Amino acid sequence: MPATPKPFEIIEDGTLTSVAGIRATGLHCGVKRKRHDLALIYSAVPTVAAAAFTTNKVNGPSILVCKENLKTPDVRAIIVVSGNANTCTGKTGLENAREKVSLTAQNLGLKSDEVLVSSTGIIGRPLPMDQVRKGIGRAAKVILRWTEETSLDPSEHGHLAARAILTTDAYPKEIAVRVKLGRKTVTLAGICKGAGMIAPNMATMLCYMATDAAIAPRLLQPLLKDAVERSFNSISVDGDTSTSDTAVLLSNGLAGNAAMDAEGKDYARFRDALHFVTRFLAQQVVRDGEGATRLMEICVRGAASDVEAKRVGMTVASSLLWKCAVFGGDPNWGRIAAAVGRAPARVKQERLVVKIGNQTVFADDSPTDYNLKQAESHMQEQKIHVTIELGLGNGEWTVWGSDLSYDYVKLNAEYHT
Amino acid sequence: MPATPKPFEIIEDGTLTSVAGIRATGLHCGVKRKRHDLALIYSAVPTVAAAAFTTNKVNGPSILVCKENLKTPDVRAIIVVSGNANTCTGKTGLENAREKVSLTAQNLGLKSDEVLVSSTGIIGRPLPMDQVRKGIGRAAKVILRWTEETSLDPSEHGHLAARAILTTDAYPKEIAVRVKLGRKTVTLAGICKGAGMIAPNMATMLCYMATDAAIAPRLLQPLLKDAVERSFNSISVDGDTSTSDTAVLLSNGLAGNAAMDAEGKDYARFRDALHFVTRFLAQQVVRDGEGATRLMEICVRGAASDVEAKRVGMTVASSLLWKCAVFGGDPNWGRIAAAVGRAPARVKQERLVVKIGNQTVFADDSPTDYNLKQAESHMQEQKIHVTIELGLGNGEWTVWGSDLSYDYVKLNAEYHT
Repeated sequence: MPATPKPFEIIEDGTLTSVAGIRATGLHCGVKRKRHDLALIYSAVPTVAAAAFTTNKVNGPSILVCKENLKTPDVRAIIVVSGNANTCTGKTGLENAREKVSLTAQNLGLKSDEVLVSSTGIIGRPLPMDQVRKGIGRAAKVILRWTEETSLDPSEHGHLAARAILTTDAYPKEIAVRVKLGRKTVTLAGICKGAGMIAPNMATMLCYMATDAAIAPRLLQPLLKDAVERSFNSISVDGDTSTSDTAVLLSNGLAGNAAMDAEGKDYARFRDALHFVTRFLAQQVVRDGEGATRLMEICVRGAASDVEAKRVGMTVASSLLWKCAVFGGDPNWGRIAAAVGRAPARVKQERLVVKIGNQTVFADDSPTDYNLKQAESHMQEQKIHVTIELGLGNGEWTVWGSDLSYDYVKLNAEYHT
Repeated sequence: MPATPKPFEIIEDGTLTSVAGIRATGLHCGVKRKRHDLALIYSAVPTVAAAAFTTNKVNGPSILVCKENLKTPDVRAIIVVSGNANTCTGKTGLENAREKVSLTAQNLGLKSDEVLVSSTGIIGRPLPMDQVRKGIGRAAKVILRWTEETSLDPSEHGHLAARAILTTDAYPKEIAVRVKLGRKTVTLAGICKGAGMIAPNMATMLCYMATDAAIAPRLLQPLLKDAVERSFNSISVDGDTSTSDTAVLLSNGLAGNAAMDAEGKDYARFRDALHFVTRFLAQQVVRDGEGATRLMEICVRGAASDVEAKRVGMTVASSLLWKCAVFGGDPNWGRIAAAVGRAPARVKQERLVVKIGNQTVFADDSPTDYNLKQAESHMQEQKIHVTIELGLGNGEWTVWGSDLSYDYVKLNAEYHT
């Protein structure tokens, strides 16, 4: 049988600016002491935008302003400040969020409702707006001179944006892929920062994606929602939820493909590429979680529904006892079974099967005669695999989690407000 | 104003055997290497029993056997083995649980359905039944010779039972109180073991209480249920739920009080005493939680309902970020606010008020001008107090939690299965 053609291809050194018409840059304006702290993302042509936000009922004014501006889905720019979450800052916080938006719009010749805004970092402190204002002006200049500046390297500036949105992340998270749709090649890219949550920062998960693919506008939001559900909403570093989590996908159609419709082959290919991108970035977030030394992938099968499969997976991925076992490299399946049993999902103990790596360790309400050494050796790998079969239905879900190490406690206990 | 008379009095050196007609002992039979591992509790006269069990859908055969035997509420004895959970052990596990019950009944001249059974410790390994059988015989002899043996010190044997149910606990947890009901004095006592959950033990929360007070049988189960809900079900060490959690209350009526009815003063006094006992034991469990260095008490007020108040409290008490802050002695209220916001309850950010100790640190969606040094000094105390006011209704609840320390990770990561 001939090899099936790769559905998509990873672009070497790819980032947001690998997408036609997408410009981005990052710089240091003075919110942080030294590191880059302001990113500006821009599309040279109109886009259709989709977005997903934190479900936390305590949230920052950026979320409110984004939701207002998304009432019309044309988004041309996103202004991101890192180092200060602009959350729990009362009326001033809302005013500052609006001013960042209007100033960005003004500098780029856009309308305010074409601009989104994010802020991540320390909470409860007012933004240093003087520095932010200057930073917006400088970033806008780079964006406006994009085609004139012959010395400007688009991917270098894309990488600057990816760095400027970080807070406690150890490294930037970015990826770009090419997908063949008919005779056209479209590009899809994303940058992301982690949800490590370090004191006193409420380290937000932020993800900005863009594509030059044309797609029926009504499809974009459900497509993003599903992709986020299966990636960023399926990971657990510590179970805490930030007040400002945001994921945005802009589509500007510059690739010239026939606009995708729900039923076509193109749509399926593009969806697979999007899931690859969001899952790649989500796993990067877990790997870079505070104190994380190991990534676990938990596949739940045979649940009564997908929703219940996800609940079981997330309960196991968030179990402190199991996370400690993963840190210690211990194939302690009893902790998996106990976490499965307390998940808000239908579970029948006598049908439960647990696998670590490719070995079944628990079935028929009893431990199997598994090879302990082999299980222990699997637990030493960088990515460990757990399979949970519930034997009740066709519900399936995959989640990713980090382990729980001394460093997590250290990072989160030693800071003083 | 004259001081109101104390509703109840703590009995010095009190334990289960402080209750009229209650006998108990503990010994080493060989499940553990050295420490006591078998406890037997007995009432010399018939009782009415109430019980509450784990909600974990994966659970041990002891839970099943207890539920069967509680179909008639007359319980005369409880046999407890520590060091082996007899969970995830298939059919053999169920047979062994039944044999422990029938052997205990036989030795004490009871019917099998008058005996309850618990097992806690390592999971997935068969019980060493030879040792357990001998242990039951020896314990039953102590119980039967209770009144003949002039050298027997009842409270010493009560303490032995309290020790014999422990697994990873650092110390036994026991208390007895006297309550004046009319002209009679009744006694209520309990022993308990912690929910530290150490590898590979699924360290169960077990609590056995007894009283010589007479109470209308139909009141006992709801009374226990409510008390457990407000104590053992309102604590968080690590958020994991054991597969064998059990709380039992036996009432034998030997105090000769007029049987309490729902509306009387006596009932209210007894209920208060029971809540004191269960909360005392629950807080002992938290204090003795794995790696715990500090106890937090979280009072939630103004919730839309009691249930929602509890959800908010438990979400905060279980937040890893906040637990780490408590360990570090850091009054990081942002982590409290973020946890409140993700709790499954109605929350309005602008109405939220957070207090640490007696200082308001967050209100009107902004940090207050609080005294940081005072807040930090409160965070250094052995028991810290957090108050969360939601401003939505009359729902209230109090929960208790431990901090998260290096030692928790160490204890749970360094063991190898």
